[in-house]
Amino acid sequence: MLESPIRRGFDLERAASAIEGFIASKVRSAGASGVVLGVSGGVDSALVLTLSVRALGPSGVLALIMPDSRLTPPEDVSDAKSLCDLFGVRRVEIDIAPIHRACLEHLPSSPLAEGNLRARIRMSLLYYHANAENRIVAGTGDRSEYLLGYFTKYGDGGVDIAPILGLYKTEVRALAAHLGVPERVARKPSSPRLWPGQTAEGELGFSYEEADVVLHRIFDLGEPVDKVRESNPRLVDAVMDWHRRTEHKRAPVESPALPL
Amino acid sequence: MLESPIRRGFDLERAASAIEGFIASKVRSAGASGVVLGVSGGVDSALVLTLSVRALGPSGVLALIMPDSRLTPPEDVSDAKSLCDLFGVRRVEIDIAPIHRACLEHLPSSPLAEGNLRARIRMSLLYYHANAENRIVAGTGDRSEYLLGYFTKYGDGGVDIAPILGLYKTEVRALAAHLGVPERVARKPSSPRLWPGQTAEGELGFSYEEADVVLHRIFDLGEPVDKVRESNPRLVDAVMDWHRRTEHKRAPVESPALPL
Repeated sequence: MLESPIRRGFDLERAASAIEGFIASKVRSAGASGVVLGVSGGVDSALVLTLSVRALGPSGVLALIMPDSRLTPPEDVSDAKSLCDLFGVRRVEIDIAPIHRACLEHLPSSPLAEGNLRARIRMSLLYYHANAENRIVAGTGDRSEYLLGYFTKYGDGGVDIAPILGLYKTEVRALAAHLGVPERVARKPSSPRLWPGQTAEGELGFSYEEADVVLHRIFDLGEPVDKVRESNPRLVDAVMDWHRRTEHKRAPVESPALPL
Repeated sequence: MLESPIRRGFDLERAASAIEGFIASKVRSAGASGVVLGVSGGVDSALVLTLSVRALGPSGVLALIMPDSRLTPPEDVSDAKSLCDLFGVRRVEIDIAPIHRACLEHLPSSPLAEGNLRARIRMSLLYYHANAENRIVAGTGDRSEYLLGYFTKYGDGGVDIAPILGLYKTEVRALAAHLGVPERVARKPSSPRLWPGQTAEGELGFSYEEADVVLHRIFDLGEPVDKVRESNPRLVDAVMDWHRRTEHKRAPVESPALPL
């Protein structure tokens, strides 16, 4: 079942058209030939793909499908391909396993580092195509992931524009379903798929439905954390713990003030 | 000949100690075990290495030397190694050629894209070690490169802290020489070495000595561009052209305002 968007009065049509206008305007002002994005078979990238095609037409969009053949479920790849074909969008498939292996050749084993490396390899391949075809990289991160810091710095976080960064995950799912993204993609449990069996909600320790309400009350409505905490201290603490630990991912890079 | 710093009254000792304090404080507040940085054999990374060792001691610093064996001059690698050994800093050498080759396996040729890819591979390897050893990535970019946009977005620009981002290239050279970085490194012509024969000043079309004066007058002293332009219109136009074309590299990632 698709849960309803958490913000009251959230207007799917108006949100879609604001995002489409944004994409078109950013491509134009960059003097670019269009966007390139990674399509994973998940709902975030399916929505950005849909909105990009609506904004630019299929020829304005290049989709990279970048499975790790040792890790990515085959149904993700086939979902990603079907979505591109549905829209008539050119797609390039690159298995990142050999690249990942070449990187690890002389590196110590570290599951966390190996996972994040996958996200950074994907970013590098997106920018390769952006450079080669004068495109800009459209990110697929959403507001829930952003506020929780649930993304790889300079990996999936390394983009030129972030069309759906204003939408909570629950809103992404609703908007995707509204715009005709196939139900099986719109409903698929979220996962960065950076290691085997990883699911977002398993790793986070709460569901997006739970997190989104907390994040919305604190970051949009400005309610004090202590007040929001009353309803469910364990949930709010867990959500805010993710937020605080990942502050550096959202902050600008710091440099020292110099005495002159 | 080492040119003198372009800012009047620039105090090398005070600058060094402000930067060292910054590095120590950022490592501490991140709860990290130290920094990791890429050491290329050039002056920027030699200076950050020096300042990091002064701030953290040798055990707080991990140096990655990441030549592309098809491209990097051997003397750069030996300069990089000597610097690390001089300070007793642990160094890991990784030839990025096989990784670069694995990426290009199925990609169209594009010299610009291939060059930037090298910088992004290096960033990915730095973060691999940062993740694996709980370190933060210290960038080696300076103020001249930053204001000219002469860096790779999410490549050498992808860092946790930027210790020398406040120093112009001419100041970097002066401070490096002052702190005992060997003359041959402090005087070496700058080059990102992203493709054969690339030199910064050849690609930019002006020298850092020329650019730094212009940048300083416009961005620090706040002089109107038109006034600065009077002294040398061609130079100022070229400098400001680099600055303007690279605005997106310095700007935060944009997302659309959503009607709710």
